[in-house]
Parts: sequence; structure tokens; C-alpha cells
Amino acid sequence: MDVQDVIKSKCAQVEPYLREYVSFGDRAIQEMVTHPIDAGGKRIRPCMALLAAEAVGGDSSKALPAAASVELLHTFTLVHDDIMDHDLTRRGRPTVHALWGEEMGIIVGDALYSSAFKALLDVRNRGVSSERVLEAVNVLVRANVELQEGQIMDMFFEKRESVTEEEYMTMIRKKTGALIEASVEIGGILGGGDKSQLGALHTFGVNCGIAFQVKDDVLDLTADKKDFGKPIGSDIRSGKKTLIIVHAMAHTKGEDLREILSILGKKDASDDEVNRVIATLKKSGSIDYAEKKVEELIQEGKRALDTLPNTQAKESMKAIADYLVKRRT
Amino acid sequence: MDVQDVIKSKCAQVEPYLREYVSFGDRAIQEMVTHPIDAGGKRIRPCMALLAAEAVGGDSSKALPAAASVELLHTFTLVHDDIMDHDLTRRGRPTVHALWGEEMGIIVGDALYSSAFKALLDVRNRGVSSERVLEAVNVLVRANVELQEGQIMDMFFEKRESVTEEEYMTMIRKKTGALIEASVEIGGILGGGDKSQLGALHTFGVNCGIAFQVKDDVLDLTADKKDFGKPIGSDIRSGKKTLIIVHAMAHTKGEDLREILSILGKKDASDDEVNRVIATLKKSGSIDYAEKKVEELIQEGKRALDTLPNTQAKESMKAIADYLVKRRT
Repeated sequence: MDVQDVIKSKCAQVEPYLREYVSFGDRAIQEMVTHPIDAGGKRIRPCMALLAAEAVGGDSSKALPAAASVELLHTFTLVHDDIMDHDLTRRGRPTVHALWGEEMGIIVGDALYSSAFKALLDVRNRGVSSERVLEAVNVLVRANVELQEGQIMDMFFEKRESVTEEEYMTMIRKKTGALIEASVEIGGILGGGDKSQLGALHTFGVNCGIAFQVKDDVLDLTADKKDFGKPIGSDIRSGKKTLIIVHAMAHTKGEDLREILSILGKKDASDDEVNRVIATLKKSGSIDYAEKKVEELIQEGKRALDTLPNTQAKESMKAIADYLVKRRT
Repeated sequence: MDVQDVIKSKCAQVEPYLREYVSFGDRAIQEMVTHPIDAGGKRIRPCMALLAAEAVGGDSSKALPAAASVELLHTFTLVHDDIMDHDLTRRGRPTVHALWGEEMGIIVGDALYSSAFKALLDVRNRGVSSERVLEAVNVLVRANVELQEGQIMDMFFEKRESVTEEEYMTMIRKKTGALIEASVEIGGILGGGDKSQLGALHTFGVNCGIAFQVKDDVLDLTADKKDFGKPIGSDIRSGKKTLIIVHAMAHTKGEDLREILSILGKKDASDDEVNRVIATLKKSGSIDYAEKKVEELIQEGKRALDTLPNTQAKESMKAIADYLVKRRT
């Protein structure tokens, strides 16, 4: 089966659960909290959770509410991110706060966060032991704390003159890696995985999570505008210290460096200015460097799965990892 | 011991735990997340949690992380509330978003929310069974979902022409009652309470929680300005449909009703206009009506505790309930 088909088939199982755990009596509330879920998305995290449960020999149907949980949690972060970044559209649709105001956006995000926990606790009704449920809750909480820490670091970095590669990698491991890692680990816990299996899933998840973010940073500069759904180079305008920028700041000098610094963080930079920075980042090898890093991380993640038994689920997880590198949006 | 001393002594036990669960490596992050904790507060919720554990014959030291949890959760809601209400000060100090911006306020609130769960999970290290920990997590999650539903209802009500008393009571049961109820129920669960004891605590918590909010609404109109720490009548300016307003809208007519309607929700209403509305609400008996309701709710809450064994903790809980009615700030 093609990887896109695997994702689609796993997704289809999770979809109804996403809505089950955000059911409010009031129709107007219901509309607001389901709006960002209906916007769709890659559903990588729930898919990974279900496959991880199977990869340790478990029954993925026991992990279905948990799969919904990690996607709801991801959705909550997007709703708050969009407010913080003042983004009025996502995936071609108006964001929650664009429709109902920032005040409501904050609380709708909070409600999605709560719903994520509600979903996870529902695995109690699927014959999972209290110890394993509690361990899954603990992994989710740990991921959340890291995620918010990573988001704050990201905001700090935007205002700093320079950031080291190590600092950047720590930040994205928390901001993006933590929840992807938690998704596979929770799947593994609920699938009955032992300590060494959970360790393998952890390594896979962390590496894929970091790779996912670096790939996102690359796509922000290289994606085809018409497929991407948002403007090219928005990270440059917002002054994000991505791996590409961090590399360029350490490996360019003179006019090239001055040009990058003069446009980075310039909110109203023209397309032409952004394109000049992108050309410079290509010339300095910074984009290639990031692409290579993505490839290495994915290889390391996939290698970690070697210790797991050979199953269709394991192959699907590897295929999704490959897809993360190759995707164009 | 005087009730204020009981609260103070219980508080003192919880204080260090509040900070333990919001420890971040980065000093700047640490400063932001502890700022709203350092602002202080009545600490009613953690105090209730510890007393409830003792009231069912349990060891309240097992519930200490849970007591920190409910206060952290309360703090999270205040940080987001202040952004939504555009309040720049709370308890005489600048709010989080006033100091670090709304974007940071959102994420600091989120981090406090995550920290609340981190705290609650730490009761695992105090010899509480997995089943009871999970039940406590479940109660906290349920309260959060209700809390956010209540906050959304509150925002909807501000824009509606009229609200019934029943609708108002449902809203504040969720918005304010749910977390106070959860605090005593979680204390009872971790203290080893049985089903009937937890039922009694639930009834006590719900009634005190609703009474607490109605009393807040009364104080907004009747408190002594110099003790209150915020302007008198801010609910009138923001157009809140409190129980007092709901009562007045059903029991006044002619010039009195027209005056209330013309000033309610007028953001720039003068002190004189606000005072005229307050005088009208006194004349219509609406403030007395709310005061009486507070008294009734507290009596009903205290009665529920009759089924519990006679302990110092039970007496302290009743004394706190009485304090909720009598407080002036």
C-alpha cells in the first residue's frame, strides 16, 4: 500500500473520534471548537500513534482515543499559534480568531486542550490498565510542558541577534519534536510495548519530529507557492532563526551577510527582497545543509525501529518518515 | 483557630509546591510563569483540597501536589482571563500580558495549565493507587471542559439582550463552580473517600463555588473601593449579566429599567452613572436577592457535610464557607 493510502486509511479511523471528544451541548460552541478540526491537516500524529501501537504487537483500536488526543492537542497549539502570529488564514480557511475574535480564540484553544485530555482518558474504557493509561497521560503532560517551553524559546530567539545550532535544535526538539515523540510513545504504551520497544519508538519519534520541523523551515523557502497555502518566506519576514538562518549567519560574510541581516525580521519585506535572501541562502549552501540534516535525522530515526519485529506497521512508519523528507507542502 | 489562620496555615504548606511544578531551566521563562503565582490570592482551592482529604479521614500530605495543581489551574485561567478582559493589573500588580505582551501571556497561561497536570501526576509518588490518581485526573479534566464552556457562555451572555436566572446559574456553576467542586472532590479522592463521602464533598463544592461567584458579583457593586483592588462596577461597564442584573431586568420597569439598560455595557460610563445603576439595583432588591442566594447556597453546602465524621477539617471547611459569604474583597 502506498504511504499516502496508509495515512488516509489510518486517518479515516480517527476522524469520528476527533469530533466525539469535543461535543458541547451548545451549537455555537460546537461550531467554534470543530472549525479548526474540520480544516483538516496531515494527521501525521494520530497516524503515528496507531502504527506505533501495532508495531509493538498491540491492538491499535485500543489507542484510537489517544490518537484523537494527540491531534486535538496539535489543533489547540495551532489555534493559539495563529493568534500569536496574527495569521488570519490556515489551510485556505479563516482561523478561529479571524472569525470569532482573539478573546474567543484563546478560550477555544483552551477547550481543545482540555478535550485532548478527555480523549486520552477514554482509553480507560478499552481494557488498558490504569498504570498504562497514567503513563500515557504522563507522556502527554511532559510533551506539553516541553512544547510550551519550546514556543517561548522560539519567541525569545526571534528577538536575539544570534542563536547557535545547538540552541536551535534544542528549541525545535521541544516545540515540534516533543508532541510527535509523545504520539509514538503513547501508541507504544497503549499497545503494550516493553521498555526497550518504547525506547526505540522514542528515538524514532524525536528524530522524525526534529526532521519534520527542519523540513518545514526548508519548505518555507523552497515550496511551490501555489501548493503551499501560505506565503513563501514568511519565516524571513518574522525574523525566525531557523537552522538555515543559523547556518548562514555562521557561514556567510561581507555583502551576503549584510543583506540577510537587513531583511531578516523586516515585516513588510517585498517579494523581491525575500527572493534575494533565498538566493543567498542557496548560494551559501545553508538550504542544502538543512536538507541533509533532515535526511540524516530520518535515517537515524528509521534505524531505531530495526529492533522492533518486522511488521506492516513498522514498514508504514518508515514510509511516513520518508514522506516527511520528500513532501512538498 | 480562626478561619483566616486555618487558611494561612494550609496555604503555607502549599506555597513551595506551587513553584516546584513550574520549574524551567531558563531564568526568563521561570520569571514569567512564577509572576502570576507570586501575585498571591486567597488560595481557597488548594486549602479546600487539603481539608477535604482530611475530612474523609485521609492524610492531606498525599494531596499536597494536587492542592498545588488546582491553584496552578486557577492561575492559568486568570492569566488568560486578563488578556481577554484587557486588564492590565491584578491584585495591584501588572498582569503577565501587560509586562510581556499578549502573545507571551497566551503561552505562559498554557504552560501553567500543563504545569497543573504535572503537579497532579506527582501524587503518584505519594503512595496513592493508580486508580485514584486517574480518577483525580479525570475530575480535573471534566472541570476544565466545564470551565471553558462556562467562560464561552459568559462571553455569549454579554452580547445577549437577556438571560434567565437558570441560564446564569448554569453558566457560573461551570465557570466558577466546577473548579472549586473539583478541588474538594480531588482532595476527597486522594484522601481515600468512599462514594457517599465524595458525593457529600461534591454537593458542598458545587454550592460553595456558585455562592463564591454570586458573592463576587455582589462585591463588584458593594465593596469598599480602597480594599477592592479594582474599580467598583466594572461588571456594569462590561455588560455582564450577573444574577443581580438578571433579577433587576425581570423585576424593574419604566424609568429604572431604562436607566439600567442605557448604562449596562457602556465601557466609558462615568462613576456617577455606575452609582446611579447601583442605587437602582439596591432599590429593586436585586442586590439583597443575590446576597440571600449566597446565604442559601452556603447553608445547603454546609448541610451536605453533615454526613461526614466530625473532624477539625470539617469545621474548617464550614468556616471557610462562612468566610466566603462574609468576605469584603
